[in-house]
Amino acid sequence: MKKGNTVFFNNAPKITSFAAVCGSKEKEGILGSYADITLQDDMYEESTFEKAECKMLTTAISLAIEKGGYTEKDIDVMLSGDLLNQIISASFAARDYDFPFLGVYSACSTMSESILLGAMLVNAGYVNRVVAATGSHFASAERQYRYPLELGCTRPPQAQWTVTGAGSCVISNESQGIKVVNGTMGKVCDYGVTDVNNMGAAMAPAAADTLIRHFKDTDTEPEDYDLILTGDLGALGSRIVKDLTWEKGFDISVNHVDCGEIVYKVIEKEFQGGSGAGCSATVLNSYILSKMSAGLYKRVLFAATGALLSTVSSGQGESIPCISHAVQLEV
Amino acid sequence: MKKGNTVFFNNAPKITSFAAVCGSKEKEGILGSYADITLQDDMYEESTFEKAECKMLTTAISLAIEKGGYTEKDIDVMLSGDLLNQIISASFAARDYDFPFLGVYSACSTMSESILLGAMLVNAGYVNRVVAATGSHFASAERQYRYPLELGCTRPPQAQWTVTGAGSCVISNESQGIKVVNGTMGKVCDYGVTDVNNMGAAMAPAAADTLIRHFKDTDTEPEDYDLILTGDLGALGSRIVKDLTWEKGFDISVNHVDCGEIVYKVIEKEFQGGSGAGCSATVLNSYILSKMSAGLYKRVLFAATGALLSTVSSGQGESIPCISHAVQLEV
Repeated sequence: MKKGNTVFFNNAPKITSFAAVCGSKEKEGILGSYADITLQDDMYEESTFEKAECKMLTTAISLAIEKGGYTEKDIDVMLSGDLLNQIISASFAARDYDFPFLGVYSACSTMSESILLGAMLVNAGYVNRVVAATGSHFASAERQYRYPLELGCTRPPQAQWTVTGAGSCVISNESQGIKVVNGTMGKVCDYGVTDVNNMGAAMAPAAADTLIRHFKDTDTEPEDYDLILTGDLGALGSRIVKDLTWEKGFDISVNHVDCGEIVYKVIEKEFQGGSGAGCSATVLNSYILSKMSAGLYKRVLFAATGALLSTVSSGQGESIPCISHAVQLEV
Repeated sequence: MKKGNTVFFNNAPKITSFAAVCGSKEKEGILGSYADITLQDDMYEESTFEKAECKMLTTAISLAIEKGGYTEKDIDVMLSGDLLNQIISASFAARDYDFPFLGVYSACSTMSESILLGAMLVNAGYVNRVVAATGSHFASAERQYRYPLELGCTRPPQAQWTVTGAGSCVISNESQGIKVVNGTMGKVCDYGVTDVNNMGAAMAPAAADTLIRHFKDTDTEPEDYDLILTGDLGALGSRIVKDLTWEKGFDISVNHVDCGEIVYKVIEKEFQGGSGAGCSATVLNSYILSKMSAGLYKRVLFAATGALLSTVSSGQGESIPCISHAVQLEV
């Protein structure tokens, strides 16, 4: 069933298992207590940052499968994407498994897009079990999107820090687990922001747009949720999304939390906080889903946010189109 | 319903409209008579190759919507991706429309992945109408994946030529149109090919793997199809896929056609033929679907093929993982 841009899942697909791997810096924050594996060295015994990123993703996928008591044979398809050019982390991770792979991409909103599409496939009865996964690596993202680390560039105050980590979950047609109740498909929003160091400001309108459409489509109010979780808006973007939704009559200030704001121990050190596809993927697939499993959060709206730019589009003077896909989770 | 890795669409979602735009070189081949718009100048009145690529994609999408007698309001979601880093052509095209966007990526198999996922969404009743689209541009692909055109590099004999063009179709729950009967999800196959100029050889095993799984899942034989259409294997890759399927007891030689082999007038000029996400997208969404609409082909198995590499993965010595998603089309 669909209303507006929201698809309702009458057969209630469930997240039955989840796992997260995070880097050494992330370990110092909440992920230190909740991630399944925390790295001592962000190279993860690989020869390149990109291979380390792929290994984190593979580890998170294998762990989610294992923790659910599944084997590779129980999984029908994997939905994944990542920030590296041509989503190589996801593609190379998929190479290690015998199940099919559907590549998806919505930048740092890839985790919610994967869960949304995965729940669609399970709810329709096409498949029994889907793996949804994504991740990012600070060093590979800096190299690809910004400057080589060796250059030692200073970071502007509006910048965020790409999270080194990967998260994965299994969405299943079983009776137990965290329900994926519905999902709101994101639209591309572009408010004309061109500063590639200010992703929070660029992405906030897309988050606000999706949240508002979600509230309207589902006839809910912000207070109906224990948590309204955005992906990686950071401190500045979080303030903007609160303002934008408030202007439209939805006050999310009480229960809004941004993964980028909570992922690091001392947020000021990373200026606006965490970012990257791995930011919401790790926080959701460790801290948030653990709390939901324990019954501490009953209803969470997860709206990861993605900036759909490339170095080429920015170099050619384009502004930054952004998107946010949302899924409503319940226990 | 699912058997093996194939999902069967009992509600028979239909391709109700399709459109293709192609470049000046492509115009000399079959696309000249079948594409809706053929360019005089591959810059398409834009300032960069990337913007021209995006404009082709947007044009193909708008045309498919218009030709079906639809307006933007009739479309529930767009599924698209492309070869440029961070699929900017698709993301920037989606910015022009008010409907939601789900970004997908499987390199040159993106057209069949989009149709497969689109048919899944329509068949389940989540949405009424989906736009599936992709494209590529010779010059932007050369710049990103290989060398700047100005360098005038010679091409090895196993090379293919990236098609400049875009294709799009509307998948709908209406009663008339070309049925999407089922779809087989691709698995990542890697036979260890490392030559980035030999995509046909790299992708052929993925195509063979998907075709064989499709035949088994659907209890069909190659002769049950009027056409078995691969994406962009080119001349060499086509010979390999015929061999690989024959070894497994499926003789596709009689009715196999590769979009890369038929897209150019004189294939030898482009060595192994056409490639790129736009290759199968333009051939399918003009020549093939026109022939199907006219009743000349009744049953077509469309298996586009994608090489999931990046310049970074190749630079780091990795081989080329490949994938092929297939959809069965019928009138």
